[in-house]
Amino acid sequence: MTKYVYDFNEGNKDLKDLLGGKGANLSEMTNLGLPVPPGFVITTEACNVYLREGEQPQELADEVSQHLDALETEMGKRLGQPDDPLLVSVRSGAKFSMPGMMDTVLNIGLNDESVGGLAKQAGNDRFAWDSYRRLIQMFGKTVMGVDGEHFDDVFDDAKKAKGTTNDLDLDETDLQQIVESYKDVVRKHTGRDFPTEPREQLDLAVRAVFDSWNGDRAKLYRRQERIPADLGTAVNICTMVFGNLGADSGTGVAFTRDPGSGDQGVYGDYLQNAQGEDVVAGIRNTVPLADLEGIDKPAYDELMGIMSKLESHYQDLCDIEFTIERNKLWMLQTRVGKRTAGAAFKIAIQLVDEGLIDMDEALNRVNGAQLAQRMFPKFDEDADKKQIAKGVNASPGAAVGKVVFDSVVAGEWAARGEDVILVRRETNPDDLPGMIAAKGILTSRGGKTSHAAVVARGMGKTCVSGADDLEVDVKGKKVTTKDGTTISEGDVLSIDGTSGAVYLGEVPVTPSPVVRYFEGTIKADADPLVAAVDRLITHADSKRRLAVRANADTPEDAERARRFGAQGIGLCRTEHMFLGDRRKHVERLILAEGEEEQKKALEALLPLQREDFIGIFTAMDGLPVTVRLIDPPLHEFLPDLTELTSRIAVAEATDETVSDTDRKLLEAVRRLHEQNPMLGLRGVRLGLVIPGLFALQVRAIAEACAELRKQGKDPKPEIMVPLVGAVQELEVVKEEAEGILAAVAEESGQSVHTLIGTMIEVPRAALTAGQIAEAAEFFSFGTNDLTQMGWGFSRDDVEGAFFSRYIDLGIFGVSPFETLDAEGIGRLVQIATEEGRQTRRDLKIGVCGEHGGDPESVHFFHKVGLDYVSCSPFRVPVARLEAGRAAIETEGSDSR
Amino acid sequence: MTKYVYDFNEGNKDLKDLLGGKGANLSEMTNLGLPVPPGFVITTEACNVYLREGEQPQELADEVSQHLDALETEMGKRLGQPDDPLLVSVRSGAKFSMPGMMDTVLNIGLNDESVGGLAKQAGNDRFAWDSYRRLIQMFGKTVMGVDGEHFDDVFDDAKKAKGTTNDLDLDETDLQQIVESYKDVVRKHTGRDFPTEPREQLDLAVRAVFDSWNGDRAKLYRRQERIPADLGTAVNICTMVFGNLGADSGTGVAFTRDPGSGDQGVYGDYLQNAQGEDVVAGIRNTVPLADLEGIDKPAYDELMGIMSKLESHYQDLCDIEFTIERNKLWMLQTRVGKRTAGAAFKIAIQLVDEGLIDMDEALNRVNGAQLAQRMFPKFDEDADKKQIAKGVNASPGAAVGKVVFDSVVAGEWAARGEDVILVRRETNPDDLPGMIAAKGILTSRGGKTSHAAVVARGMGKTCVSGADDLEVDVKGKKVTTKDGTTISEGDVLSIDGTSGAVYLGEVPVTPSPVVRYFEGTIKADADPLVAAVDRLITHADSKRRLAVRANADTPEDAERARRFGAQGIGLCRTEHMFLGDRRKHVERLILAEGEEEQKKALEALLPLQREDFIGIFTAMDGLPVTVRLIDPPLHEFLPDLTELTSRIAVAEATDETVSDTDRKLLEAVRRLHEQNPMLGLRGVRLGLVIPGLFALQVRAIAEACAELRKQGKDPKPEIMVPLVGAVQELEVVKEEAEGILAAVAEESGQSVHTLIGTMIEVPRAALTAGQIAEAAEFFSFGTNDLTQMGWGFSRDDVEGAFFSRYIDLGIFGVSPFETLDAEGIGRLVQIATEEGRQTRRDLKIGVCGEHGGDPESVHFFHKVGLDYVSCSPFRVPVARLEAGRAAIETEGSDSR
Repeated sequence: MTKYVYDFNEGNKDLKDLLGGKGANLSEMTNLGLPVPPGFVITTEACNVYLREGEQPQELADEVSQHLDALETEMGKRLGQPDDPLLVSVRSGAKFSMPGMMDTVLNIGLNDESVGGLAKQAGNDRFAWDSYRRLIQMFGKTVMGVDGEHFDDVFDDAKKAKGTTNDLDLDETDLQQIVESYKDVVRKHTGRDFPTEPREQLDLAVRAVFDSWNGDRAKLYRRQERIPADLGTAVNICTMVFGNLGADSGTGVAFTRDPGSGDQGVYGDYLQNAQGEDVVAGIRNTVPLADLEGIDKPAYDELMGIMSKLESHYQDLCDIEFTIERNKLWMLQTRVGKRTAGAAFKIAIQLVDEGLIDMDEALNRVNGAQLAQRMFPKFDEDADKKQIAKGVNASPGAAVGKVVFDSVVAGEWAARGEDVILVRRETNPDDLPGMIAAKGILTSRGGKTSHAAVVARGMGKTCVSGADDLEVDVKGKKVTTKDGTTISEGDVLSIDGTSGAVYLGEVPVTPSPVVRYFEGTIKADADPLVAAVDRLITHADSKRRLAVRANADTPEDAERARRFGAQGIGLCRTEHMFLGDRRKHVERLILAEGEEEQKKALEALLPLQREDFIGIFTAMDGLPVTVRLIDPPLHEFLPDLTELTSRIAVAEATDETVSDTDRKLLEAVRRLHEQNPMLGLRGVRLGLVIPGLFALQVRAIAEACAELRKQGKDPKPEIMVPLVGAVQELEVVKEEAEGILAAVAEESGQSVHTLIGTMIEVPRAALTAGQIAEAAEFFSFGTNDLTQMGWGFSRDDVEGAFFSRYIDLGIFGVSPFETLDAEGIGRLVQIATEEGRQTRRDLKIGVCGEHGGDPESVHFFHKVGLDYVSCSPFRVPVARLEAGRAAIETEGSDSR
Repeated sequence: MTKYVYDFNEGNKDLKDLLGGKGANLSEMTNLGLPVPPGFVITTEACNVYLREGEQPQELADEVSQHLDALETEMGKRLGQPDDPLLVSVRSGAKFSMPGMMDTVLNIGLNDESVGGLAKQAGNDRFAWDSYRRLIQMFGKTVMGVDGEHFDDVFDDAKKAKGTTNDLDLDETDLQQIVESYKDVVRKHTGRDFPTEPREQLDLAVRAVFDSWNGDRAKLYRRQERIPADLGTAVNICTMVFGNLGADSGTGVAFTRDPGSGDQGVYGDYLQNAQGEDVVAGIRNTVPLADLEGIDKPAYDELMGIMSKLESHYQDLCDIEFTIERNKLWMLQTRVGKRTAGAAFKIAIQLVDEGLIDMDEALNRVNGAQLAQRMFPKFDEDADKKQIAKGVNASPGAAVGKVVFDSVVAGEWAARGEDVILVRRETNPDDLPGMIAAKGILTSRGGKTSHAAVVARGMGKTCVSGADDLEVDVKGKKVTTKDGTTISEGDVLSIDGTSGAVYLGEVPVTPSPVVRYFEGTIKADADPLVAAVDRLITHADSKRRLAVRANADTPEDAERARRFGAQGIGLCRTEHMFLGDRRKHVERLILAEGEEEQKKALEALLPLQREDFIGIFTAMDGLPVTVRLIDPPLHEFLPDLTELTSRIAVAEATDETVSDTDRKLLEAVRRLHEQNPMLGLRGVRLGLVIPGLFALQVRAIAEACAELRKQGKDPKPEIMVPLVGAVQELEVVKEEAEGILAAVAEESGQSVHTLIGTMIEVPRAALTAGQIAEAAEFFSFGTNDLTQMGWGFSRDDVEGAFFSRYIDLGIFGVSPFETLDAEGIGRLVQIATEEGRQTRRDLKIGVCGEHGGDPESVHFFHKVGLDYVSCSPFRVPVARLEAGRAAIETEGSDSR
């Protein structure tokens, strides 16, 4: 028979699936002999049966009775016993902490009779009635579904009648009155009485916890976080202890080391004569944990011992909640504690040096997101700063600029070289140009999933959202702070997207020491954080199976990438090589009448392209460089249709002369205009339609290669054909390219061997990868386009238009452009990898979309078995770290 | 040991894989005891070994020797025997007839000595030297790779020297001289002598046939037709017989019944004293086959007997090549003959009535493309017509209109209601607007894969391409015919896209009797073709497993579809319901400031929408109607950005006042403007972002349904959510829709039950179909969008821009918008079907893209196991026929 209830001493920390996180840790502490108030856990399985069947299994009621009997026997009193009641708390506790689940109900077991027993036992009438009042309020709200405002109204009225605003001014008589009124509230809004039978209170609370698993907020959160709906929640039933019985009681939180810096020491807060919720309510100020030594030395000493024991046991920083009831210490919760990004690295290495964990485990304790966070520039900590608000840390970084309130001004000021911060109440798609122009974005409304937040993260732009202390008046072009300071257009603000802080004026920015270390300007031992990063990334390098390359289009970027540890270039785009001064050749190519003209335009480009490649191959001497042949539609090199049409129409209407070139240009722009350029004549299609275009590029690559070989260098180009959807396309291009390579080899007498491969970025390419691998010597997944085409949306158009709405609705947990959508797009990656290798065993496979630098996506690419990831130079260390972590993770699962 | 060579009497017609089509049929005739000149076939396997190894297997040479010995023994003379040479022909013969393969080489075995023997045996010197001359010419060209022009030059010079233009004026001395000159040509251009050793001639010719399998044109053709590259070709070696030995000899072609009408009788042509190639060259006119009876009664009677035997044996119309050598009839080839679309139907039914085949086989003999062809209107056959040119039948139909030469005029004239024919030398993407405006397109250059042809077929527009008798002068705006007639802009032409004919003036168009039959205006017995179609489509209906629905948006279309046999509406688009007068409500919706305004705009639309649905549900009473919720981006309902920007800019520049509405409109158009509307805010995304939009539609459907039920009707709506990529999207919409359905059911007291399902048109939807089926009650594949997104190209942008180039390069055999790309996009269909049904066993699955009416695609959908296809009303009969054929095909393969 299934066992639905576990006493705390029957569980352990590894049973999170069954007992939830809270229950598993309470069990673990109980087994360690720590002072945990006795109690038991109802399993997630019981929850699932209840949700499936619509009622609690009979066995559950029986088991609860047994465990309750045992608890009553142990405590020497019965639940709600009138003269000396056993009281319990009921708390939800799923495997993952989930917002929207039912909160705690304390003091179960109190009723009109037992409140007297509690008063007598505690010697404190006010305490007993206050406890009863709290029970009805919590129970009414969370179990019986009464709107909390009705209770608040009663409470506020009572204080008003008393002429006070302080809860503590209410005495036991007031509280008795309130209890009666609360009962009325329950009766009025639910049509039934507050249940006074203790066991009924308990059963109803348990059922409410179960039901809350399917509450709207919980469902939304699960949809966003892709938490399976059938995990269910456990329920913790725990004997009440009270920190509010007087000066010899209290409650506190503690960390086993500093979660901000990782330093060892005593960290936490204590509040005398209080319950946990009073700490949250902030009625009185807490004292530093160290002060507890002076207040209650024995309890303090015991707590220190327990903390040390817990840290050794969990081999990690723990955070702890405790209560002292009349000088007796009780442990109410422990878990592995959250920490800042920097602390994570330092703690991991400290634990290694203390012999608690090994390097693999240390690597497991940090992640790429934390590393990335420490690579952003930060505001100078020592600088004078005037913080005027704090919002949500929506997109990390440190941005300084002049305040602007609309896209037009943002664009104009940015165009003349000024740094601007776009300030709005909230943003919408109209603000996109302004967001692009700005260094940072600040809004007074909205959280992490607001339009501003989602778009800014997509752009990699600093953003603080929901700074609700600021009143933003867009029409009046001013911001008013809480203390009445007014900030006008043009005033300077500094915003910290990593912390959410907003500062008045310019705060100096300091570069990240981690970046300086990668850049080679400081040594690893310059800083404890850098030293930790150095050791962990070195370990990751020794473990990882994925190579890490960078996306870089210029020699400067290539050199930087190399310093950051890139083992090659995975994506060298060539389109920028057709811009600037060279635009005129492209225009000539497009306007050419006849092949002769076209040829001349291409020939003019050849020496320029050759120099481009000589630069990049030199910077990456000895390492592979994947050159992508030109990809975007030609019209991107021409003026905008609307702008040009409008200009010519105006010129005509005002009898100005319109130049012949302008007319020709308009004709070409019209001819090349596409409804959906993303789905138009670009990539390999362009190469097949414009004779000589790809040939020019291949020749430039081959000649650069030959030239460098003559100089004794070792260039390693790989030619990548973009947007292939069918093997036939690649075959045609490859045949021509091989002819050119052979010709250049003969002309130069140098080997110009290069692999020829393709991007897999069109869904059909992935679906026919087995065929494509017959021609392709390597694959590189273009996961951006694969995401765009696989989902059928273009990033430019939709990210600002509806992603925040989609995240709010729980359709995405995160933008699929940020983290690869493993279920959908990832399936294409998997199909193509498997079937490509079936055709060609030694097929080299990498990824060069932005996902290559995203931590979660790197794990996916490792699992699927790619050979490398390629990402922006800045992301290379992140990818190295995560590739190492992914390798360790797989080792772990292999040995299972 | 593999057997590489088969005597004709060792093979049979079922060995096409091994012996090729020609060899298999020659064998079959030999086995039937028909007079086939003795010979043998080298197998496709030998070809493949040669192509793989680079040389012919030794066993092959040995086997050829054995079979040649046997042949020589049988014929009583050796290959090239000086005094009486055995001569043979060498012909390629792959499984499928393939352009670009090596042509025939005749007269192998002739050399300087045996030419004398042949002359003596034939008693005809000129014949012998002409045969020798032909050998060197054919061999030089096809085996030794000499450009044919060099031989032509020699021949033309000889005729010039003789002062004639007629080949027959050259006598044996002239031909001897030509033989010598031909040998010089070979020596000069190949550096080696023409091989005079008979066996060497034979071996080289065989090798040349093998090599031609990998010729450029053959490879291109295979790429286009998706013929596997490893089939290889067989080689037929056959004793020469001569139709040019005098008046008692001749050559001809024959059909066992009229390939144009299907009528029984004697059809064919005969040419006395000639070889097959002379018929092709058209030097003399052939006589009707019936005349052979007067020329050579015994041979004629024998031929009639053979033809009857062949038809019974092949149970089909056969076409035949034969030669009479000195009154002796020889059969050189037979195969199942090509026929016109109309004849195909009539012949199939005739054969059934003659007891030769059953109805299943008859259905197998016709196809949907033929049926479609007979559904186009045709020019009145009895009308006076002046044909002025004949081009390629590039896209079927009959179009009449005024000649225009450019897009601008085409657009203007069409806008004022005139029918126009766009005439160009060839078309390019600039001509697209003109092609859209025109009723038909006529070009003087280009074939079936030209830009004009590909685009016109895509548009379903009549097109004749490559009418090279016409000289098109676009600048001068005139066309000149071969006989000097000039056609100017505005003159009327009639073009027949089914035959390629071009007529001067207006030719009356008669509607297709097949369509009139489906429309119910004539009975099945009105016409033999209609009677045949009726019987075959009735049989198809009894066999097919796929249901056939139609895509229809109005009651009129729905009624028509029903008459054409549609079993429901598979796609009722709703966007047109927001156009016309209703556009103002949509503008109001878009320009609305605040939800109240939006709500009002939607409320105004509700009664209109309800009426729309009442109309359609009434027309389809009792049959399912799948209503797609609004799909396109909102900005499609607004003016064009470029046009509006330009207009306002001009107004401003000329100091005209710009209305407030225009300004607001411009703002909205700018805000809604998307780079790639196809990949933008549309479909379900729009429904999730604009509150109330989908709700309005669902309510209109439900209310229409309730209203009709009250009237005792049986509406069967199915609600289809477009562009779903993730199950979560559908869940959110479904939850809202179910709420509305329940509300309307309660308000009206009527059941408004409807299935709720989704289009599968985004690749990700197909890849996660197992999840989506948890919410979807049906799937309908939108194969247009699936093709666009799966290949990553938008039809509007690319079909005209590069499809003809792609077809020329062999990247496509046919546009993937015409026939479903089974390998790529079809795989998505398959994955989604399988995984959708794994989740929901009774999931109803159909397709509503245009592929639903494409014959080849229908077979694919049948095989994958869909429940129905839906296509335009006009295509419904085609789909019915093909669905029946597909069912029979599967039965066949099941029983195998």
